[in-house]
Amino acid sequence: MTDGFARHLKPPYFAVIFTSQRREGDNGYDQMAERMVELASGMPGFLGVESARDAAGLGITVSYWQSEEAIRDWRRHAEHRIAQERGQKEWYAHYELRVAAVTRAYAGPPERQP
Amino acid sequence: MTDGFARHLKPPYFAVIFTSQRREGDNGYDQMAERMVELASGMPGFLGVESARDAAGLGITVSYWQSEEAIRDWRRHAEHRIAQERGQKEWYAHYELRVAAVTRAYAGPPERQP
Repeated sequence: MTDGFARHLKPPYFAVIFTSQRREGDNGYDQMAERMVELASGMPGFLGVESARDAAGLGITVSYWQSEEAIRDWRRHAEHRIAQERGQKEWYAHYELRVAAVTRAYAGPPERQP
Repeated sequence: MTDGFARHLKPPYFAVIFTSQRREGDNGYDQMAERMVELASGMPGFLGVESARDAAGLGITVSYWQSEEAIRDWRRHAEHRIAQERGQKEWYAHYELRVAAVTRAYAGPPERQP
């Protein structure tokens, strides 16, 4: 994800949409977030991740996976579970997490002809 | 979406995940974005929207819909089509758009007991 996009994924695949409002203060969040991307990237079935957080602390991270089993294994990963617990106690004022099956995908803008 | 979350949606429903990199300059973008949220909110089958864009111009907007037909009608909406064209020509350096069926959803953190 050099430019922030998960490109060239061929449906069907799965998405975990994680929308969250950060609390004030870092409290080790940035380091954890970086580590989680590193860890997830090494998991079987991981396809990519896209993430954006605005100045008010509202963020959306979408990770893409080959199967629901891959998502389950990632959810249960020991180090990820510790991060989940810290997230609930320290980092997030609120979050919504959704699991979805991606059926269609498009990229753009279309290449312009000279 | 007073606080940026689409809350209390009951799966199954559908999500349109739109990840985009903005070009430099506003060129009427902010006004259009606001208008599109207003328009979409009035469409049949619209359930909610969540959106975040970071300082580097990478953004993720996820809109939620009752059915694939509602998504199709929104895609074809005349004013939305004009915005799509301007997006391709003026506003976006790159985008990825995905349609997905949300099967499971969770919110948190869990309420803490006193």
